Amino acid sequence: MASEMKPYQAISAKKKAQQQDRIPKAWRIPTDKFQNATNVMDVPLTCGLLNETESRITSDYDATALLEQLKAGVWSAEQVTVAFCKRAAIAHQLTNCLTEIFFDDAIERAKKLDQEYDPKSRGKPLPPLFGLPVSLKDSFQVSGYDTSTGLGCYVDEPAEDNSALAAMLIDLGAVLYCKTNLPQSIMTGDSDNNVFGRTLNPRNKLFTAGGSTGGEGALLALRGSILGVGTDIGGSIRVPSVCNGIYGFRPSVGLVPHSGVRDLTPPGTDGVRSAVGPMATSLRDCALFLKSIVQADTWKYDSTSISIPWVDLKPAHKLRIGVAQNDGVYTPSPPIRRGLKQVVDLLSGNNDIEIIHINLPDVESHYQDFISYMTLSGSDYYNEQFERTGEPTIPSLTAIGLLSVPGTTLQGFFNLNVRRAEAAKTYLKLFRDNDLDVILMPPAPHTAVPLDSWTKAAYTSLWNYLDYPAIVIPVDQVQDMDFADDLSNAKFGPDDEQLYSLYTGPEQYKGAPLYWTRS
Amino acid sequence: MASEMKPYQAISAKKKAQQQDRIPKAWRIPTDKFQNATNVMDVPLTCGLLNETESRITSDYDATALLEQLKAGVWSAEQVTVAFCKRAAIAHQLTNCLTEIFFDDAIERAKKLDQEYDPKSRGKPLPPLFGLPVSLKDSFQVSGYDTSTGLGCYVDEPAEDNSALAAMLIDLGAVLYCKTNLPQSIMTGDSDNNVFGRTLNPRNKLFTAGGSTGGEGALLALRGSILGVGTDIGGSIRVPSVCNGIYGFRPSVGLVPHSGVRDLTPPGTDGVRSAVGPMATSLRDCALFLKSIVQADTWKYDSTSISIPWVDLKPAHKLRIGVAQNDGVYTPSPPIRRGLKQVVDLLSGNNDIEIIHINLPDVESHYQDFISYMTLSGSDYYNEQFERTGEPTIPSLTAIGLLSVPGTTLQGFFNLNVRRAEAAKTYLKLFRDNDLDVILMPPAPHTAVPLDSWTKAAYTSLWNYLDYPAIVIPVDQVQDMDFADDLSNAKFGPDDEQLYSLYTGPEQYKGAPLYWTRS
Repeated sequence: MASEMKPYQAISAKKKAQQQDRIPKAWRIPTDKFQNATNVMDVPLTCGLLNETESRITSDYDATALLEQLKAGVWSAEQVTVAFCKRAAIAHQLTNCLTEIFFDDAIERAKKLDQEYDPKSRGKPLPPLFGLPVSLKDSFQVSGYDTSTGLGCYVDEPAEDNSALAAMLIDLGAVLYCKTNLPQSIMTGDSDNNVFGRTLNPRNKLFTAGGSTGGEGALLALRGSILGVGTDIGGSIRVPSVCNGIYGFRPSVGLVPHSGVRDLTPPGTDGVRSAVGPMATSLRDCALFLKSIVQADTWKYDSTSISIPWVDLKPAHKLRIGVAQNDGVYTPSPPIRRGLKQVVDLLSGNNDIEIIHINLPDVESHYQDFISYMTLSGSDYYNEQFERTGEPTIPSLTAIGLLSVPGTTLQGFFNLNVRRAEAAKTYLKLFRDNDLDVILMPPAPHTAVPLDSWTKAAYTSLWNYLDYPAIVIPVDQVQDMDFADDLSNAKFGPDDEQLYSLYTGPEQYKGAPLYWTRS
Repeated sequence: MASEMKPYQAISAKKKAQQQDRIPKAWRIPTDKFQNATNVMDVPLTCGLLNETESRITSDYDATALLEQLKAGVWSAEQVTVAFCKRAAIAHQLTNCLTEIFFDDAIERAKKLDQEYDPKSRGKPLPPLFGLPVSLKDSFQVSGYDTSTGLGCYVDEPAEDNSALAAMLIDLGAVLYCKTNLPQSIMTGDSDNNVFGRTLNPRNKLFTAGGSTGGEGALLALRGSILGVGTDIGGSIRVPSVCNGIYGFRPSVGLVPHSGVRDLTPPGTDGVRSAVGPMATSLRDCALFLKSIVQADTWKYDSTSISIPWVDLKPAHKLRIGVAQNDGVYTPSPPIRRGLKQVVDLLSGNNDIEIIHINLPDVESHYQDFISYMTLSGSDYYNEQFERTGEPTIPSLTAIGLLSVPGTTLQGFFNLNVRRAEAAKTYLKLFRDNDLDVILMPPAPHTAVPLDSWTKAAYTSLWNYLDYPAIVIPVDQVQDMDFADDLSNAKFGPDDEQLYSLYTGPEQYKGAPLYWTRS
């Protein structure tokens, strides 16, 4: 039998067994029991594995509040770490969200932190992120563990060094305890690969958990993590945030160190670059992450990062919010439109805020150029990595079609840069002519969608193309009132109609989170 | 006769006549009288054109002090502008340092500033650079004037918009009054082109004024400007600073808006990018420029700029200075070595400073890769522009040989990026292993050199390649004691020997400025 297995299958089997080994027997749950449940959001608290303290630690706080408890000595670093390791183990057994599991090391480190710093005696000053568990996307190197990114060819090659961000988090006092799942190629909206398999959406297993940082999305949704870190080159932080009811922030490129991330783009590639950012359960946790990192001399960890001082910006005037109902390419589905209206109505009642309705210019051509940036070298580099272990292409990667786009030349690359520089001017003019502080719009034309059907980086990729910061903020969920309406509402052509047709009404979609985005 | 002229010659003749027209008759000096003088540094104050007030205004202050006088109402903006226009006119007649001359507009603007703001009445708050004359390299677009960069094909195409930096300076209250000369292609160490001709070094007309921001160098040396702005992709701010006894600072790319600069690199080119920075007569003036720009919301003028808050950094510990005697490729000439020793001896006596001797790794390969970055597309783009008006290549451009380097492919470009990322890591390790705050080294292996012999971007281009900030600070001049020594002191091979042989002793070089640089 073994001889009939492709190399990647043997690798996967071994790796999955290793994962299983790293979950203590006492932390295993009867997964068969939940096999047929579509929504598993309540399982962590109902399965009986977490004691009352662990339930409280993992349920009652955002990272900012939890950090306060840790620093006040209410909970020890060990207590908090054990609680999140346990809950992450549950989340993983329900959604397959983890890749590398290092609970033992984490608990060991937490104990040492407790010994080294005694919050109650107020002796040694506590590090900024004292004892806070932080989960990382698989692509961040963590010393001693694989950075396989779900590719067989990189399994069993433990990293010798920490990525810059992992090193920073450790120096800041955080506790790293697991890495999370992502798609083969790290380029799709479904976190599915041939080594670890697919991460499921805990709210609806028939829907994608999003990608590429989908493991984080599912883990945070189930509160198996309170602060996660992803990367985003076309929406990879924001798409899983949309799918999983969490906050996700993509800063501009370079603010958070990216060195030591395996992102599978051909080495030395340039143009649209990947940015590192937080995924969290509150807005202030995104700020906590950014502030902690930015204040910690990023240049010492990655000389290519943009090391700037942190400033607590306060609006000095009435906040001017430009609202874009859509991107002019894809029509938001009915629940998305309702969610946006809900937000705009709320904001319109605020005297410190002015709403300005705007249209985004030329988005379709920017999407096209974004795809060209993603495929500068064509597909050989990816295919070569897949072929090393005989891996097939995952369905979502086939569906997005990126691997069939031909590469370009140096001149073609320069031409893209010229057009992007023009786009940057156009968008700057949009901001200045309307005196905008921020743009509010849907983060995507739809909520989470059925497996392997999130095929466009629509909405999200515009901000990567322009390198504007962008955040996803939860608003509501799909409700009974969100009826599907006629396809004729999709006014922007056949592609729009096709995407619009994904929304079939509240029966299938009820409970899917709604979001708005800010740039 | 006219029919025998090449197109560029007719364009040049017309342009030179236009320049002459823009210098008021009363401001003309008997240039024949100074034709044979090698050093013209004293002419501005001895030629009799400046009255006592104008002499004081242009001689007695750096930009910071002059701005204080302007803001205190000691001198009016008009007085200051007229004084610098006059002195710039003298400098131009001596060294051919200007390209676009707009004294009339400048004086008009100064009058309006005086009317709009009355410093004495302390009514309306004064803008940060109230009334300060600032000169710009020709490549910055200034609305209504050519941005020819010394190429015939761009003459008589007045800019419709201001470059981002020109717009910022105007909004900050500065007075723009002239643009300055640069080399054909903006890529050599001799500011010489077929439209405006060559800028001469006011200390020694047989030596280069440096390039590519050589017009600024000569203008500042003669104090026809008190604050100039250049661009630097391989040393273009620092080389003329070395040649002309001034301070020149190249910030990291993106800190100062670069939009609206015609830099003649093929559109959309990437890799090593040009940075905008100040040229000045004092260190604090470099800070004045940076602070004024950085504090003024650069993103509003150029969305590709890195908009950061300004911080007055104070060393929190003993300053650790890494001293590199050379780059391991070119041996500094005897006066440069003496200058560096002088500085190190001085600093060694300071208890707040620690000196650490270091060697720079792999510089030769970085220089090679830098040249590859400069020639990504080969030479077609440049040659096509020259051919439009039948222009020959200037001697220094032929000498550096950049136009005969073939271009590369997209993969070649990515390979360069990979190597540069490795270099960045190596240099970060150098900084961290030695806990360095700064590196002190010669800014070049030599002082200003005879015309058309500054053929390497040695020393300077390393910091462009790595995108480290770098400043040139004046130290001393070549003195009688600086004897030439044996070629055997040049230990790094034939190229080193050749460059080392340029220094022939104090007879020819006496008075050439010596500098140190800081990264």
